[in-house]
Amino acid sequence: MEYNFSDNLKDLKPSAIREILKFTSEPGYIPFAAGNPAPETLPTDAVSAILSDIMMEQPVDALQYSVTEGYAPLRKTLKDYLKSTQNIGRDSDELIITSGAQQVMSLSAAVLCDAGDTVVCEDPSFIGSLNAFRAAGLKLVGVPVEKDGMNVELLDKVLDAEKNVKFIYTIPNFQNPAGVCMSVQKRKALYETAKQHKVMIVEDNPYGDTCFDGVCPPSVKSFDEDGIVIYAGSFSKVISPGLRVGFALAPSAVISKMVVCKQTADVHTSILSQMICYRFMTGGGYENHLSRNREIYRNKCGLMQSLLDRDMAPFIEYNKPSGGLFIWCRIKNGSDAESFCKKALERRVAVVPGSAFSVAPGGNGDCFRLNYSTPTDEQIVNGIGILGEVAKATLG
Amino acid sequence: MEYNFSDNLKDLKPSAIREILKFTSEPGYIPFAAGNPAPETLPTDAVSAILSDIMMEQPVDALQYSVTEGYAPLRKTLKDYLKSTQNIGRDSDELIITSGAQQVMSLSAAVLCDAGDTVVCEDPSFIGSLNAFRAAGLKLVGVPVEKDGMNVELLDKVLDAEKNVKFIYTIPNFQNPAGVCMSVQKRKALYETAKQHKVMIVEDNPYGDTCFDGVCPPSVKSFDEDGIVIYAGSFSKVISPGLRVGFALAPSAVISKMVVCKQTADVHTSILSQMICYRFMTGGGYENHLSRNREIYRNKCGLMQSLLDRDMAPFIEYNKPSGGLFIWCRIKNGSDAESFCKKALERRVAVVPGSAFSVAPGGNGDCFRLNYSTPTDEQIVNGIGILGEVAKATLG
Repeated sequence: MEYNFSDNLKDLKPSAIREILKFTSEPGYIPFAAGNPAPETLPTDAVSAILSDIMMEQPVDALQYSVTEGYAPLRKTLKDYLKSTQNIGRDSDELIITSGAQQVMSLSAAVLCDAGDTVVCEDPSFIGSLNAFRAAGLKLVGVPVEKDGMNVELLDKVLDAEKNVKFIYTIPNFQNPAGVCMSVQKRKALYETAKQHKVMIVEDNPYGDTCFDGVCPPSVKSFDEDGIVIYAGSFSKVISPGLRVGFALAPSAVISKMVVCKQTADVHTSILSQMICYRFMTGGGYENHLSRNREIYRNKCGLMQSLLDRDMAPFIEYNKPSGGLFIWCRIKNGSDAESFCKKALERRVAVVPGSAFSVAPGGNGDCFRLNYSTPTDEQIVNGIGILGEVAKATLG
Repeated sequence: MEYNFSDNLKDLKPSAIREILKFTSEPGYIPFAAGNPAPETLPTDAVSAILSDIMMEQPVDALQYSVTEGYAPLRKTLKDYLKSTQNIGRDSDELIITSGAQQVMSLSAAVLCDAGDTVVCEDPSFIGSLNAFRAAGLKLVGVPVEKDGMNVELLDKVLDAEKNVKFIYTIPNFQNPAGVCMSVQKRKALYETAKQHKVMIVEDNPYGDTCFDGVCPPSVKSFDEDGIVIYAGSFSKVISPGLRVGFALAPSAVISKMVVCKQTADVHTSILSQMICYRFMTGGGYENHLSRNREIYRNKCGLMQSLLDRDMAPFIEYNKPSGGLFIWCRIKNGSDAESFCKKALERRVAVVPGSAFSVAPGGNGDCFRLNYSTPTDEQIVNGIGILGEVAKATLG
């Protein structure tokens, strides 16, 4: 049988990162390509104890069907936490638990857009989100990311020029892949620009809790008196990505539509996963856990930076991140990063070329992304050493 | 802000069942409306032991990111099991783990269809699937379900008349809500008809393992030498619905596209949930567990039938199910079932009117669906007693 697949999928290839990831899950590769939390940040002992308690106290609840909106105690805990720590959430907002923050992207597209509509994205941006929008048949328009975040003046022009823009997608904290943190001024300007153009904002914040010094600038959602921001959060970088628990906090009218869509997507998120997150957040020690993780990431990032400065300073430039999991490198002489990454892969170091994160084909051709959370310190030392040799041989 | 939502969602209301369900999770209601597995079928002790083992032996694997295709040992176990028990699967097929069988429906729609395409569905059919297709902007055309399954002659005519039919959706075993099992002859005719018209089949089999006598007719997928059937299975009725683990076995070309779509939907299904299912399937005692569950459902169904025969015989007719979770009732004098269900709800018995399962508005107006898996035996006795009184008062 000859298969006719949906038009929306024609331009959609499997995520380059996940394909490299698959390849590099073979033993013997140094994993600078993934975005996994450091294994030592995963609270395995605490989760183990929590699972015993759950199966003792609520075994049937943990296995039975639940409601689409999410586990009520977790929803309440999250709403209180977001309000008290970041002033996120107004009376007109609601919260839905999702199967990772990734699902917030597909739900936002499904709820707000028809095929052919436009989404404005930071360029470069997270490939998983870009692909979710592409899979919904949406047109993507990129706005360059600068050292202090998206170019908001250009955003204004894009919104003037483009028709049917349904939302702006942004990762203000430790943007993936660019690693930059949006300034407070730009956050405010972004909010006002969106409001003026009556366009919604999807604010994706998977990395906020990894902030090295513990304090991020105010989130765009914290300004939201007008009900124009969908805020996406995730437990993937603070408890576990394998459990697949994220959430959206957004105007109630939007959340109601998301509930209807999520019913048709997966009914509800694993209730056992949700119970684990709830008990972990409320069991004591959550803030200690976060601050311990921040120190792990600060150290790993510092180690990778010092080695980049030692071995690769002549060939690349990069922004020093203040959180997140990634360092974004630009090859100074403008050489093609894809061929550099291929050479690195031959030496068993997996690195993602910048083109994978481009909104339009062919962008960011002289960039690549390094991840410091997945590799061990030893792998960071060895891997950057090898990259230095590859750079010397091919970019010198 | 005034929100503009996707056109695809305009006709989509929250699942009537889930709305009733929410209402009836209040204590004091007799739950004939849900489709929950009987709590006593949930293997809480086994899952508890499995969780201890997982957190002892593979704690990091259980919490870390995994691959979109699903946990490799579970995929292999499922493929072997389906092949050996039901001759399902050819060399050209592959298997993907999904977040419940519900996700197979949204992935099938996303992979095979563009908005405006047509899907042919049994009428009545499972509202969760119908809504997944509606949310994808698809046109639904119904073919009546008879005592031995879908009217295949009419299907043939529908396929002649309709343009852009992308697939036929069927639940051959213990159809939800009609409770009927498709005959072998009709399964073969369905397959040949689809093949002739070059239309794919999505075969949904959530209830096969509940078959009272342990042996279902051959699945449509078992005939599939031509690569035209997507087979959807689920652990929801055999281990736990709360874990959200299902799967699709389908031609590799289709599965590849599903993998790309699933990456954008939720990256992967909870890996902890997948590990539980794998260990439960392979830990010994799986067949015993299934046969114990079958006995529970046979008894509950038998109890409800005997009470219906005693209290409601003058007012309704129904098909005796040989598996599944539901009894589908038709009011003999053609009275409106929605008003009957409202009266029942006033007496604290929750029942879903047949109209909720209609492909087109207004169908199945004289029918309602009873679930026997969720209530206790005592609730079945009391609930049918009350329904008998309501019937006498309103249908007599």
